Amino acid sequence: MELRCKNLLSIGDLAPEEITLILDTAGSMKEVSERDIKKVPTLRGKTVINLFFEPSTRTRTSFEIAGKRLSADVINITAGSSSVVKGETLRDTGENLQAMHPDLIVVRHSCAGAPKILADALPAAIINAGDGAHEHPTQALLDAFTMRERTGRLAGLKVAIIGDITHSRVARSNIFLLNMMGAQVRVSGPQTMVPRFIESLGVAFVPSLIDAVRDVDVIMMLRIQRERQNQSLFPSVREYSRFFGLSSDVLRHARPDVLVMHPGPVNRGIEMSAEVMDGPASIILDQVTNGVAVRMALMYLLIGK
Amino acid sequence: MELRCKNLLSIGDLAPEEITLILDTAGSMKEVSERDIKKVPTLRGKTVINLFFEPSTRTRTSFEIAGKRLSADVINITAGSSSVVKGETLRDTGENLQAMHPDLIVVRHSCAGAPKILADALPAAIINAGDGAHEHPTQALLDAFTMRERTGRLAGLKVAIIGDITHSRVARSNIFLLNMMGAQVRVSGPQTMVPRFIESLGVAFVPSLIDAVRDVDVIMMLRIQRERQNQSLFPSVREYSRFFGLSSDVLRHARPDVLVMHPGPVNRGIEMSAEVMDGPASIILDQVTNGVAVRMALMYLLIGK
Amino acid sequence: MELRCKNLLSIGDLAPEEITLILDTAGSMKEVSERDIKKVPTLRGKTVINLFFEPSTRTRTSFEIAGKRLSADVINITAGSSSVVKGETLRDTGENLQAMHPDLIVVRHSCAGAPKILADALPAAIINAGDGAHEHPTQALLDAFTMRERTGRLAGLKVAIIGDITHSRVARSNIFLLNMMGAQVRVSGPQTMVPRFIESLGVAFVPSLIDAVRDVDVIMMLRIQRERQNQSLFPSVREYSRFFGLSSDVLRHARPDVLVMHPGPVNRGIEMSAEVMDGPASIILDQVTNGVAVRMALMYLLIGK
Repeated sequence: MELRCKNLLSIGDLAPEEITLILDTAGSMKEVSERDIKKVPTLRGKTVINLFFEPSTRTRTSFEIAGKRLSADVINITAGSSSVVKGETLRDTGENLQAMHPDLIVVRHSCAGAPKILADALPAAIINAGDGAHEHPTQALLDAFTMRERTGRLAGLKVAIIGDITHSRVARSNIFLLNMMGAQVRVSGPQTMVPRFIESLGVAFVPSLIDAVRDVDVIMMLRIQRERQNQSLFPSVREYSRFFGLSSDVLRHARPDVLVMHPGPVNRGIEMSAEVMDGPASIILDQVTNGVAVRMALMYLLIGK
Repeated sequence: MELRCKNLLSIGDLAPEEITLILDTAGSMKEVSERDIKKVPTLRGKTVINLFFEPSTRTRTSFEIAGKRLSADVINITAGSSSVVKGETLRDTGENLQAMHPDLIVVRHSCAGAPKILADALPAAIINAGDGAHEHPTQALLDAFTMRERTGRLAGLKVAIIGDITHSRVARSNIFLLNMMGAQVRVSGPQTMVPRFIESLGVAFVPSLIDAVRDVDVIMMLRIQRERQNQSLFPSVREYSRFFGLSSDVLRHARPDVLVMHPGPVNRGIEMSAEVMDGPASIILDQVTNGVAVRMALMYLLIGK
Repeated sequence: MELRCKNLLSIGDLAPEEITLILDTAGSMKEVSERDIKKVPTLRGKTVINLFFEPSTRTRTSFEIAGKRLSADVINITAGSSSVVKGETLRDTGENLQAMHPDLIVVRHSCAGAPKILADALPAAIINAGDGAHEHPTQALLDAFTMRERTGRLAGLKVAIIGDITHSRVARSNIFLLNMMGAQVRVSGPQTMVPRFIESLGVAFVPSLIDAVRDVDVIMMLRIQRERQNQSLFPSVREYSRFFGLSSDVLRHARPDVLVMHPGPVNRGIEMSAEVMDGPASIILDQVTNGVAVRMALMYLLIGK
């Protein structure tokens, strides 16, 4: 089986069996990173461009390591929008890169839809590594891999996503994927940070954090963007943390085997207490490990065949 | 046949048969980038340093891809003059890099002559990737490759170069190369942007754009440096564009098979209209593709034998 | 024989026979960089992360070249403390990187002790590439390699270290290493820049530069940090240079076969005159060459077995 599309722009591009294919492939790829010699020749002679208009050390590093462990040539282009383009349109930037025959362009951009512009214009495969508040599909895939690895399933899983739902591309991609795979999603967070018609996505809104975490298999905390504070979506970080931070006290209302996730980087003591973060429920570092595996799988499926 | 010099600093370093050798070699290299496995072991175990004192995503990426497709180890050093040198002279910086045994240093610098300082001091091969308003020889070579690929020749070709001739290293390198290979060059642009004794280079100055494009094989548009506007070399971008921007209206005065080139990145709607840029005459993206091939050829000829 | 510790944080971690092992191994590694094909497969499939919180083109490049010549995959993370961590602790940053299974993390940080935090938390090997005013052990090792290569020994060698002893991690690592290997160290510099209890380290303080250089085998000049001028540790660069800059006049008081070293980059005309820097006593560029060899040796010994 192969992926139908040359790109991964959003979870909606994928059918459930394609998601399963990606997760299964990631299982084999994960094993490569556990070897003594962490390298396979799968993508030798392929050119992967990491085109990051928004800085992101972590995600860029994950893609770079994924590409190099598959023996691809990886080129990093990290730049503010201005300095890359010097008056060029995004499409022109893309067409110029395409002229150098890359096989895959991984793109992160502060504007929703930027990866789609490239995907429509270019023959190269495009992976969306986060576009504005739109989607971050590889994050949802690595989250799904991690949940499935830990619980053995996605269908029927109960997942609570907590935080700034409205502005989170991580939340959006996760909601789409989990819905598609038969999980049940509820969200919680300040009312100013939850879209008014969230139920239309098949998602329950639970105002209280304690109610939200009750009886779920997974609690997924979102990163708080401190710069949002100025937009008066919430009065202060301290207040946010008091009502929507995951403490041991809150966790006591959840199932004893609940799993705690976070896309990182965590603001210690804000989204969750240090105790929770370093405690047995936390599988945050598994997410990071699995990120490399999922990205290797995607690279292989998109350009390695 | 081999290149006589260990460096490529300026077009004047090359004899016509060396230019032909580079272009012929680039022809074979171009084929590598069109393969499924875009990699040959030619420069395995060679160290290439990209030393960029001026930012340039596009040129740096082109050299990096060229080096990696030849299996060289490529090290990027991108920095403002200040942060690289910390009180060091350029020669000291060069000698320190040399002590790490690179085979080739690709250097871009805002000062004319910087690559020559390195070339005189160091045993490593040096490629000038643009030095101030002096030269950008790999650009002229990729332009020549593109013209020859499209028209089958350089001798006798009529080429109009349009824009800020005085400050353009692209114009200088192209004029030298085209003259040497027997092409006829004319230039056009605001009088404030054309050197007064341009004819002494064997180049005609044609004040009107419409007259300049008439009957030529190739129109080469130069990039407008918007920061020049402050120096009152031209009153406004809008006025520049009106008199020296390449529109479809202007193009109607040229031959129907004329080719339009630009070293990129293009300011859409300023140096040329979107219609011209995306139209059939434009071979701008061919230039980018050929840039990788020409740089692979040079790397091979300078350090691969 | 093998190194006992998985990390290199400070010279004190090493026993004298381990230092000898590193220097002997560097001897073989140096030969690799002198070959036509400067690459061996020793670290194929290993992942090396260069994690630089302080900018340092030279040291980063040396480690990157060392890793690539050993065929490791090298990932550069160069960033101000703020932009890497976004509210993360250093330990969290480290644990996130660890989750991607690097074999070695090379870390430079403006805070003393930062590499130790990573070393204690992570299974990966850690090399300290300079932490605040604490240590820079690979510099001391490459300096020792260079001295031994030139004079045939370390035991009994007389070494004068000149400059800002108090704030220099280079001075500290060198003093520890030279003491351990049986060399005799004296220091000189402005009294404000020499720790008051320096003798307790087994080091003599010689106030006058001329007295300090008399009869030594090696003069090691330290880099003057111009930003220290504001802290009124010395009145002006000119005055510093007059009393503690190494001129030919001063050198006349030293032995005719004395060796002059500097960790670079040199402020020409400040720490030493151009005449001395470019003269026959200077082995500054040998230090740079040997830096690659010593770092290759360390990588091999830490993660290549």
